[in-house]
Amino acid sequence: MASSSRALSKLPGVAPHVASRLLSQLSRRATLASRPALASRQAIVARRGYADAATPLAPKPKQRRFRAWRWGWRLTYLSSIAGVAWVGYGIYQDRHPDEQIEPDPSKKTLVILGTGWGSVSLLKRLDTENYNVIVISPRNYFLFTPLLPSCTTGTIEHRSIMEPIRTILRQKKASVKYYEAEATSIDPERKIVRVTDNSEVKGATTETEVPYDMLVIGVGAENATFGIPGVRENSCFLKEIGDAQLIRKKIMDCVETAAFKDQSPEEIDRLLHMVVVGGGPTGVEFAGELQDFFEEDIKKLIPEISDRFRVTLIEALPNVLPSFSKQLIEYTESTFKEEKIDIKTKTMVKKVTDKTVEAEMQGPNGKEKVVFPYGLLVWATGNAVRPVIRDLMAKIPAQKDSRRGLAVNEYLVVQGTRDIWAVGDCAVAGYAPTAQVAGQEGTFLARLLNNMAKTEALEEKIRDLSGSLNLKPGNAAEVSREIEEYERQLRRIKDVKPFHYSHQGSLAYIGSEKAVADVSWFNGNVASGGSLTYLFWRSAYLSMCFSSRNRLLVINDWLKSKLFGRDVSRE
Amino acid sequence: MASSSRALSKLPGVAPHVASRLLSQLSRRATLASRPALASRQAIVARRGYADAATPLAPKPKQRRFRAWRWGWRLTYLSSIAGVAWVGYGIYQDRHPDEQIEPDPSKKTLVILGTGWGSVSLLKRLDTENYNVIVISPRNYFLFTPLLPSCTTGTIEHRSIMEPIRTILRQKKASVKYYEAEATSIDPERKIVRVTDNSEVKGATTETEVPYDMLVIGVGAENATFGIPGVRENSCFLKEIGDAQLIRKKIMDCVETAAFKDQSPEEIDRLLHMVVVGGGPTGVEFAGELQDFFEEDIKKLIPEISDRFRVTLIEALPNVLPSFSKQLIEYTESTFKEEKIDIKTKTMVKKVTDKTVEAEMQGPNGKEKVVFPYGLLVWATGNAVRPVIRDLMAKIPAQKDSRRGLAVNEYLVVQGTRDIWAVGDCAVAGYAPTAQVAGQEGTFLARLLNNMAKTEALEEKIRDLSGSLNLKPGNAAEVSREIEEYERQLRRIKDVKPFHYSHQGSLAYIGSEKAVADVSWFNGNVASGGSLTYLFWRSAYLSMCFSSRNRLLVINDWLKSKLFGRDVSRE
Repeated sequence: MASSSRALSKLPGVAPHVASRLLSQLSRRATLASRPALASRQAIVARRGYADAATPLAPKPKQRRFRAWRWGWRLTYLSSIAGVAWVGYGIYQDRHPDEQIEPDPSKKTLVILGTGWGSVSLLKRLDTENYNVIVISPRNYFLFTPLLPSCTTGTIEHRSIMEPIRTILRQKKASVKYYEAEATSIDPERKIVRVTDNSEVKGATTETEVPYDMLVIGVGAENATFGIPGVRENSCFLKEIGDAQLIRKKIMDCVETAAFKDQSPEEIDRLLHMVVVGGGPTGVEFAGELQDFFEEDIKKLIPEISDRFRVTLIEALPNVLPSFSKQLIEYTESTFKEEKIDIKTKTMVKKVTDKTVEAEMQGPNGKEKVVFPYGLLVWATGNAVRPVIRDLMAKIPAQKDSRRGLAVNEYLVVQGTRDIWAVGDCAVAGYAPTAQVAGQEGTFLARLLNNMAKTEALEEKIRDLSGSLNLKPGNAAEVSREIEEYERQLRRIKDVKPFHYSHQGSLAYIGSEKAVADVSWFNGNVASGGSLTYLFWRSAYLSMCFSSRNRLLVINDWLKSKLFGRDVSRE
Repeated sequence: MASSSRALSKLPGVAPHVASRLLSQLSRRATLASRPALASRQAIVARRGYADAATPLAPKPKQRRFRAWRWGWRLTYLSSIAGVAWVGYGIYQDRHPDEQIEPDPSKKTLVILGTGWGSVSLLKRLDTENYNVIVISPRNYFLFTPLLPSCTTGTIEHRSIMEPIRTILRQKKASVKYYEAEATSIDPERKIVRVTDNSEVKGATTETEVPYDMLVIGVGAENATFGIPGVRENSCFLKEIGDAQLIRKKIMDCVETAAFKDQSPEEIDRLLHMVVVGGGPTGVEFAGELQDFFEEDIKKLIPEISDRFRVTLIEALPNVLPSFSKQLIEYTESTFKEEKIDIKTKTMVKKVTDKTVEAEMQGPNGKEKVVFPYGLLVWATGNAVRPVIRDLMAKIPAQKDSRRGLAVNEYLVVQGTRDIWAVGDCAVAGYAPTAQVAGQEGTFLARLLNNMAKTEALEEKIRDLSGSLNLKPGNAAEVSREIEEYERQLRRIKDVKPFHYSHQGSLAYIGSEKAVADVSWFNGNVASGGSLTYLFWRSAYLSMCFSSRNRLLVINDWLKSKLFGRDVSRE
């Protein structure tokens, strides 16, 4: 408002004028405070005049307190300017990357399949100038899967958690080719990947072969239905953006159909019964988000049907969130009880029809058959091996005993192959199929591949030097010294430790602005649940987002849904 | 940063301390300026000391100039606080509406079909407490269609231009029923609308009848293909959100397929050729948005194919934008030439296949056949009558000569019916099928219906009073006076003028941050085109948005796409 006056008094050319005006004002005030004035020196006079009149001790601490305030304010101000400038610079850099190095045919071709956690973590840290890198995936973006359950209700818009692979690749030092296609088969003998463009728009060429020198497989897994009849036909999965969009559409479709004229009460009950199968973090977070959506938004807009809304979470194991500690499981279960989310543990789904889930429940009196009529069924459990991986496994004798994916060694090399690595859910390395594991595997592989390139370069240099040794007179000592130096470097680089997964913790949102967290901390574990943990959940997920763009968009969406509520349009 | 010091000097209890400090500093400066000091009064001294030394005239205007600055700053500051508070209050009100009056069976039932411009403009101004209002539409949101072309490239996210009908209805004084269903037939004899739930999720009841006392039809029109073979199968329309999403997906699909390995140059040319049929504002804006998307985003990310990208706009008439003035048509055509958008006027599409558009072009040497191979074809022309309207027209003898929709009289009553009104693209009132016309019709109808309710209420009162006249002794004079007063009110209200459309102007975005505008101005017309007009286009569209929520979301999206670029993910 009037901070201009402050700004003015700082301008060297202006200060005296303003100063004099200020001075006169202040002096008038001072005059009122103490008539018997001192007039020995020019303006000190006013201060003294005042100081004499007022209590001499009181002002001191006040002044200091305000000074602290002022400094606090200045710091906040400066740090927010610096923060904005930093983020802005980052975004500018992302939007205006340097020219890229063009592919060099003399280098090896590294083909990366997939654009999920494993492949993208690898790409992020890979020095692409060492190889001719080709990325192949039917999905031309990276998806930040942990926030996918929030997309089903519109808490977050789906595009905020997508990062185009083209943008990611444009940031690399050397240019990387990308083909939007599905790898349909891999030939480890001929070192070739067959790819097909399965999207709607097709060119004259829809199928082709991509030769590789080195191959990284990060194609993930597909949804498993465990052979239960009716699951694939009737339920929604929750793995890709399309799934989240479909669920969002269906939730509102159920609500609007329940609000249709002359709908019977039993049908309303069925349509507003949302069944989630799978008590892992995805299922739990989805159930929580659903409940939030109803409580915070639908109830207000369509009050006539809202008391009939129910969520049921079905889990075959004795409890939900099996990877969490016992007290957090109990906390989640009690929170769900408050939120009126029904948990059915020890319940195995046996059959799904278009309107019911038939399950077998392990009760105190033995097994019991239950039927849940539903409006929406979300299947949030189980990973199955993709056809391309099954096909490859059939070609490698060493893989014949592996069931859940490509068995890899401690350097993530696919057992029984040369120059093929696997990361993420399609690889069996002895860890759970989570984003965290895939991400760490990708990062490990980037380090490995970078090192291999450096090693080769050093070995070549050593070979060249050895070749020149004793050709010219008197260079022996110098060359030997150089060779020794390179060999020392080589030993250091070559010494890559095998992959080891370090668990950072588990997080899950459980609805009503509460979350649970099991976080590793100095070889121990910190378990916490509640609203503060929800803030931690938010900040942890934010920090894990791929780019500043994603982070800002997610914050923006959180603010949006807080301010305006979630969008109940069905499209 | 240090505006705290300013703030402090305003605090009554603190000012003297800070003042004294300031004073001492300033006085030191003053001392430097003029050693021979005056020391007659307390602090005026400093000012004089300075004033004597400096030129006595210079400071004055400076001080005044800074005062203007300060006031400017204060005004900006205050008005932005007031603005934020106002918008915030509006949003809060929208999110926390008052309790609604429940339906009253004694009132007439008003059924409104559709949630487009006509129906929603009507709903916005209708006093819902006068009727039992029921809204029926298969689309549970209002769509701000003028910004739909921006959604096709992601300049704006589609949810930003959608307003849920549930939110709109929740703001009304009396509660309004909404059924998400399609009206399949109207029976003007029995006064019944048959509705069907055509969405994916279906309840036991999917079809039912809704009786009405009064009916407003605002179901709009569907896409016309003029019987040209292959149009419906191969082209995208641009009328609904789903269309915009499909186009957005297909643009990226074309680009990624063109970038596929071993794609032939001819195929790349075909895939990157985007053909738009229809030179009205929708077609022109879409062509402009497409060009922007390529120039600003795709070129940067996928440079290898970008010089092959082309847009062709096909129009059967001799020029594009037929509703605009001549100089704006020329301006648009020359801008398109700069942007390398090819305009083919006097060109009639004859046949469409999955990869080509066959057309007949009126050249200087007579008619000529041309074939355009395309990757994406957008059909942005033509309205056809919906089946429900055709069906109703067949039932009304008076409508037998009407072709393009329900003929209505000057009060928008459907010719040959009682208690049925029609608005928007399904009504033929002698105006172009635009959002502007539909909106004005809706507003007119709201006034009409509000008046009718008031009229009825007054007539009833008069009837009651006439009935009571001379029953009690001596009330005659008073009652007659009351009756007279009511009758005067009645005359005033009943005097509704017929609907008259007032054209506010036409606007179109033409790419490269340029727009054209033909705006009505004091019985005249102002035509303008260029970058300033683009700002006008933006602010006009913003002001036309349905709600503050829409407005803020659209601004947010504009900033987002400016800052981060458009999203090139295909999903």
